[in-house]
Amino acid sequence: MRRGDAVPLYHQIFLALRDEILSGTRAYGSTVPTEHQLSERFGVSRITARRALDELSDMGLVERRRRIGTRVIHRARPAAIDADIDQTVESLLAFGRDTAVRVLAFGAVPADPGVAEALGIDPQMEVLRAVRVRYKDGEPLGRIVSYTPLRFADVLTETALTTAPLLELLLRSGARIGSGSQTISALSADPELVEALALEPRAAVLRVERHVQDDAGTPLLLTIADYRADRYRISVDLSASGGRR
Amino acid sequence: MRRGDAVPLYHQIFLALRDEILSGTRAYGSTVPTEHQLSERFGVSRITARRALDELSDMGLVERRRRIGTRVIHRARPAAIDADIDQTVESLLAFGRDTAVRVLAFGAVPADPGVAEALGIDPQMEVLRAVRVRYKDGEPLGRIVSYTPLRFADVLTETALTTAPLLELLLRSGARIGSGSQTISALSADPELVEALALEPRAAVLRVERHVQDDAGTPLLLTIADYRADRYRISVDLSASGGRR
Repeated sequence: MRRGDAVPLYHQIFLALRDEILSGTRAYGSTVPTEHQLSERFGVSRITARRALDELSDMGLVERRRRIGTRVIHRARPAAIDADIDQTVESLLAFGRDTAVRVLAFGAVPADPGVAEALGIDPQMEVLRAVRVRYKDGEPLGRIVSYTPLRFADVLTETALTTAPLLELLLRSGARIGSGSQTISALSADPELVEALALEPRAAVLRVERHVQDDAGTPLLLTIADYRADRYRISVDLSASGGRR
Repeated sequence: MRRGDAVPLYHQIFLALRDEILSGTRAYGSTVPTEHQLSERFGVSRITARRALDELSDMGLVERRRRIGTRVIHRARPAAIDADIDQTVESLLAFGRDTAVRVLAFGAVPADPGVAEALGIDPQMEVLRAVRVRYKDGEPLGRIVSYTPLRFADVLTETALTTAPLLELLLRSGARIGSGSQTISALSADPELVEALALEPRAAVLRVERHVQDDAGTPLLLTIADYRADRYRISVDLSASGGRR
């Protein structure tokens, strides 16, 4: 791995602590590691550790007091959303309070090889592509790019997509959902996603890719959803057998 | 969100394409978007788009040829590992070929508030902490930080941890696993993780936090596993009911 774009160490430490404070992992009022603890943990000099704490203090995230130590003085926004693995954030949020959807793009596009494979069609055949951003409390939560076969052009309209989850629209049109699979991964945001989700360049995002087939095994939907890592996570209950394996 | 550490746009585009090539998402021999396509997609000038392609070419990842266009000439490493949601990568890999574990740290430490809550003990009480890195094909896959109650000190030793998954060791000692929960999230690596997993500063990582209780509901284990996003992802099958909700 190349380390071409080296960020100074003190700034990396600052960023890591900042992320924890902004996301609420380090709660309001909690103690921040001391210079000594930081220098031990990250194997850096006390000067480097101090600079990271100075930056946090300059940003108004912590308060440094003699003898008492450094404390978090930032109240994090509402906790990240916990989505159940079996539920789409779509279903969870579409009609929830404080959520909204904006359609960034909608229309027929030629399928690239990955999309063609997922939908079981030939590359370059046209598919319906919808790009939406979901908002919660007025801030972007995730960008959802969906691909569906052209035969759904009647039910999937830009207006319909702002009022109901895509899967719901497919069901209303008579489609019967048979099976599906999800892949969860992480990646660094590209400039397009940075823009859509109001992120920092190269911020970490959580990706959920979903393939859905109808009850005859015919592909219905490919969805690639990228969520802000500070606002979204996925919870899964483990059965005893699962845990025991 | 602050954009303090702005990375130039052409470099962000380069990094996004590079990630896709290195991870195999853009396969050997496939076509890379043209300057024109990149400038449309990211809303940048052709000069910016060209610079991103130049960087890819300088790194030997793509070959630009007149008329034919730009093609990927890098063969990605073996595909990322797909782990089933019900299985720990631990169980999957511990005895697999080409995998190895290295114990970075092991011993009793005072529980911080989060660990104390997870294990149902008072803060500052001692718990067993193990920090391990798992390797596959000689390269780091993930760092696993585990916390268990001190009563397991007999079965959990540094040597034992290099030979068997932690959960396996707990089972051998007579513990009976009752239930568990997992939370999956994404974050940017801090300097410690960058070092352990040979990452770029602030690289995206996939985090799996797992809480396991015994059959009486007593906490057995808290595990925080951070995986390299380019080498690890999680797959989940969806039941029809799950998809339909």
